Amino acid sequence: MVIIDRIRRLRKEMSDKGIDAYIVPSSDPHMSEYVAAHWEGRKWLSGFTGSAGTLVITQDSCGLWTDGRYYVQAEKQLEGTGIRLFKFGMEGVKSFTEWIADTLGQGECVGMDGKLFSVSQVRNMEKIFSKKGILINKEHDLLMGIWKDRPAIPRETVFVHDMVYAGRTAAQKIEDVREMMAQKGASYHLVSSLDDIAWLYNIRGGDVAYNPVAISYALISEEKAWLFINEDKVSVPVREHLSDNGVEIEDYERIESYLSRLGRGDTILLDPQRVNSWLYDSIGREARIEEDTAITTILKAVKNQVEIENLKKAHIKDGVAMVKFLCWLDNNLSKEEITEITVADKLEEFRSQQENYMGLSFPTIAGYGDHGAIVHYQADEESAYTLKPHGLLLIDSGCQYLEGTTDITRTIALGPTTPQQRSDYTLTLKGNIKLSRTRFLKGATGTNLDILARLYLWEHGIDYKHGTGHGVGYFLNVHEGPQSISPRISTVKLEEGMLVSNEPGVYREGSHGIRIENLLLVAGDIETEFGEFLRFEPVTLCPIDLAAVEPDLLDEEEKRWLNQYHERVYDTLSPLLDEKERLWLKDKTKAI
Amino acid sequence: MVIIDRIRRLRKEMSDKGIDAYIVPSSDPHMSEYVAAHWEGRKWLSGFTGSAGTLVITQDSCGLWTDGRYYVQAEKQLEGTGIRLFKFGMEGVKSFTEWIADTLGQGECVGMDGKLFSVSQVRNMEKIFSKKGILINKEHDLLMGIWKDRPAIPRETVFVHDMVYAGRTAAQKIEDVREMMAQKGASYHLVSSLDDIAWLYNIRGGDVAYNPVAISYALISEEKAWLFINEDKVSVPVREHLSDNGVEIEDYERIESYLSRLGRGDTILLDPQRVNSWLYDSIGREARIEEDTAITTILKAVKNQVEIENLKKAHIKDGVAMVKFLCWLDNNLSKEEITEITVADKLEEFRSQQENYMGLSFPTIAGYGDHGAIVHYQADEESAYTLKPHGLLLIDSGCQYLEGTTDITRTIALGPTTPQQRSDYTLTLKGNIKLSRTRFLKGATGTNLDILARLYLWEHGIDYKHGTGHGVGYFLNVHEGPQSISPRISTVKLEEGMLVSNEPGVYREGSHGIRIENLLLVAGDIETEFGEFLRFEPVTLCPIDLAAVEPDLLDEEEKRWLNQYHERVYDTLSPLLDEKERLWLKDKTKAI
Repeated sequence: MVIIDRIRRLRKEMSDKGIDAYIVPSSDPHMSEYVAAHWEGRKWLSGFTGSAGTLVITQDSCGLWTDGRYYVQAEKQLEGTGIRLFKFGMEGVKSFTEWIADTLGQGECVGMDGKLFSVSQVRNMEKIFSKKGILINKEHDLLMGIWKDRPAIPRETVFVHDMVYAGRTAAQKIEDVREMMAQKGASYHLVSSLDDIAWLYNIRGGDVAYNPVAISYALISEEKAWLFINEDKVSVPVREHLSDNGVEIEDYERIESYLSRLGRGDTILLDPQRVNSWLYDSIGREARIEEDTAITTILKAVKNQVEIENLKKAHIKDGVAMVKFLCWLDNNLSKEEITEITVADKLEEFRSQQENYMGLSFPTIAGYGDHGAIVHYQADEESAYTLKPHGLLLIDSGCQYLEGTTDITRTIALGPTTPQQRSDYTLTLKGNIKLSRTRFLKGATGTNLDILARLYLWEHGIDYKHGTGHGVGYFLNVHEGPQSISPRISTVKLEEGMLVSNEPGVYREGSHGIRIENLLLVAGDIETEFGEFLRFEPVTLCPIDLAAVEPDLLDEEEKRWLNQYHERVYDTLSPLLDEKERLWLKDKTKAI
Repeated sequence: MVIIDRIRRLRKEMSDKGIDAYIVPSSDPHMSEYVAAHWEGRKWLSGFTGSAGTLVITQDSCGLWTDGRYYVQAEKQLEGTGIRLFKFGMEGVKSFTEWIADTLGQGECVGMDGKLFSVSQVRNMEKIFSKKGILINKEHDLLMGIWKDRPAIPRETVFVHDMVYAGRTAAQKIEDVREMMAQKGASYHLVSSLDDIAWLYNIRGGDVAYNPVAISYALISEEKAWLFINEDKVSVPVREHLSDNGVEIEDYERIESYLSRLGRGDTILLDPQRVNSWLYDSIGREARIEEDTAITTILKAVKNQVEIENLKKAHIKDGVAMVKFLCWLDNNLSKEEITEITVADKLEEFRSQQENYMGLSFPTIAGYGDHGAIVHYQADEESAYTLKPHGLLLIDSGCQYLEGTTDITRTIALGPTTPQQRSDYTLTLKGNIKLSRTRFLKGATGTNLDILARLYLWEHGIDYKHGTGHGVGYFLNVHEGPQSISPRISTVKLEEGMLVSNEPGVYREGSHGIRIENLLLVAGDIETEFGEFLRFEPVTLCPIDLAAVEPDLLDEEEKRWLNQYHERVYDTLSPLLDEKERLWLKDKTKAI
């Protein structure tokens, strides 16, 4: 079997290098959420295709750690490989770090490719391993020698994200960064997150699925700014754009030598959670390192006026595509066979007809019936259900336009629903509305607000095991911090111009799943003697299905919010629809 | 002038010791909230009597830092002393650490008594001062030489907190601590917070106002447990109690030599936020130090069954005293002159008539009219208002019983109120009710829940500038962590058996103040497929004044909660009241 053979060859490499345990993660040197095929070593080595998982190999054991989303899939894919599945997150299941600490003895060595782990991850491992006298060797990418047909690092062409969309030139953004660098006493700033680099230099790329980014590093000094990138990707106009904005191009691999030249008197700012350990180690020993969230991450999160106007346009286009799709679904459900895959394809088709469409922002989740209860479900030919005229269909999808990134979830009743489904749906909706319409004091974090979306569900003993919302990029990554709305501790204050999702849900295993998601823009509100207040402005425009609503569970204010939202949806989208779609929308947005 | 002379003498001491800036804080070696007179050096040196403030003296400058509660008072008290007031918390006002960093030059020295600063505080200063090359000398208590009539460290008698109240022997608690020490790999645990020590050894003292604690240190090893205390305070029965529970007595000053003897192979656990810097420095250099919240703090926060039963009894007694007082106030307001001071005295009188009364748990806040808007107002002969038959009276008070500590705030309409007062009052009440009746998932922290009490106020552009709730001790400190309910980041999960306050409010400067406070016990609730849920059980029993309620602002569920609460108050307290009081209570708890 191919997997067993690959692991056998890796073990050979390990013993040649004196490595007793080798770790293969799911990341790339930029700590990306989605990675290029070149860095899908864990998938190649284990056969497990899920997006999250860590493989650990010793001479006589091999384990894969993955989370609840992938238990079933991993079990199936690991069958016969001899790889043991560790269900991370389950009571009593050790982390891979703890497992290694328990398995290896004093003086034994853990190997890894230091480029694939953040500074913080390695520090955490060092802390645990050092207690046991276990050594770490970060020097080797052992896959190099055994993965013969390994895909190259992608070389997709870079393009400029025009000022009419970006709203601020790269040169201006670099100046903004320098201003904050000065405040923090930093003479250099290393940025290695791909979305941060794309935002800073107003460029986009195609190296990674769903995220329009280019594999690269950025370094900003008080005087200069560099983009480290494979020069083959950079066309003449892009080169001119960068040059015009004071950005010098260097080869991707040259970042190391630049960092190694830093010395006494230099202070380099970097984010230890986003910068990989190898890069960190290459910084000149005499340089001072200042650790903090990247300045680009902080600035990028607050959308400027041009971005805000554009992202509203993007959401109108997305609303039109969604309405066209939902109307089509409504009309064709009884006429033809529609599967979960048809749903995703058809929706993509409607989106792709919109102007400046640039692709999906993540794989569409279309889960019918009990598939809706699998939070990150992705249908394949084997699993895909055919839709029936009853029960609930959950569709979580989004795409990229030059004017911004979208992310919307709607749960649609395809016919009769059960009382439990209606109750779950309405409680979810109540939470969504509560968060949407809250006024909050400037200074509040997502940790403070999360409960608003969860409150009604908790009253009924229900909870969802994910955050309520994540930050969203601008024609960039659909998941972009630093802001979030989650019970987990975050010190990031919500600020005017930030974009976050609002997506409470209910997941009943083996029965149904519900999620209702709009994107919210943080907007200014009143100022009183007690302080400045903010509010949310929903930018997603698409009817929220009323078929599964239990009206008795909604109070008057909730009904008013819902009716006003639907009025806005109708008024904004109807001029952009054909007659049939307009009538459909009229019906779907009628007051309750 | 006496203050100028004292500072002059301190400056002499400073130059003798080569100290360029000297810091005098408001704390004691145990990081207590209330300190004994011996440690009120800042008050003695500056003349400022507020509970919080830090004095910094250089050869040509002198500054006092205090917060918003004390701006007015400090301005008045510092007049003519040459001490400059720094209004900490106001925009653009530096912290004293920043001020020192800006004022002193390279190689200059900051002096302080290392016993009066926590390890964390000193580290924070070191971080800032080291950047500027400023040195720290923690060796000297410079007041020693110049404060001739300095009060001695108090020597009040210690007594045993009986098992019928404590519910668990000191020996059992020590074993519980050792169990957690083993889990953390600690062979020693240093405890220096006075409430922790009192709880652990089931002793109480009288060294500090309001907090029934004794100045002492505790050290627990795998085999032994020590109490470091002035032996004069320890009577024979207490000595026997300690001995029976395996606790050895050593002199207060001997802690240093015990810590210095620790060495290779020893691991000592301590809380860097509660242990003073001098104590930390005295630990043997070869010993390993493990830093974390004290185990006693964690265990103490969760009340055991005996404590829970008792604290409910304490709250019944406190409710009786409150009702007797409120009834008296109602009957006598028009008959005699009642001032804010009379209110505090009379309430104390009713409390002191209750069995096992052991004193107040903090200075009573009785603020009439605009005084109610001063969050920590304390009336004195000069400031005290005479109550009039209109407007609002805010009373925040509490006391100690052998069966527990109480803390309650009621805001009473003394006659006609304005629409704004009624609206503010009702919105505060709505927040209090919302938090009281919420069901929440096990694992939630006070950071997650705080917004429930604030939500309705925010809707109206109102906020209160304090946390919603603090942990409460058991016949110990009225403010006891680690749990709290606050927008500020806390990772402490609320657990069954924890006691917290619920005290939203509205403060309109120059007009009125409102606060409604009950103590809540965290209790178990339902368990579902989604997890385990908790709820709050109000233990405070006292009518919430309905006179200022705007019924239209309450929904049906809020009215139901209020009526049920009042029914419980009446049913529980009425058998313990005389006929007149009973009738008064009947009227005050009638359904709305």
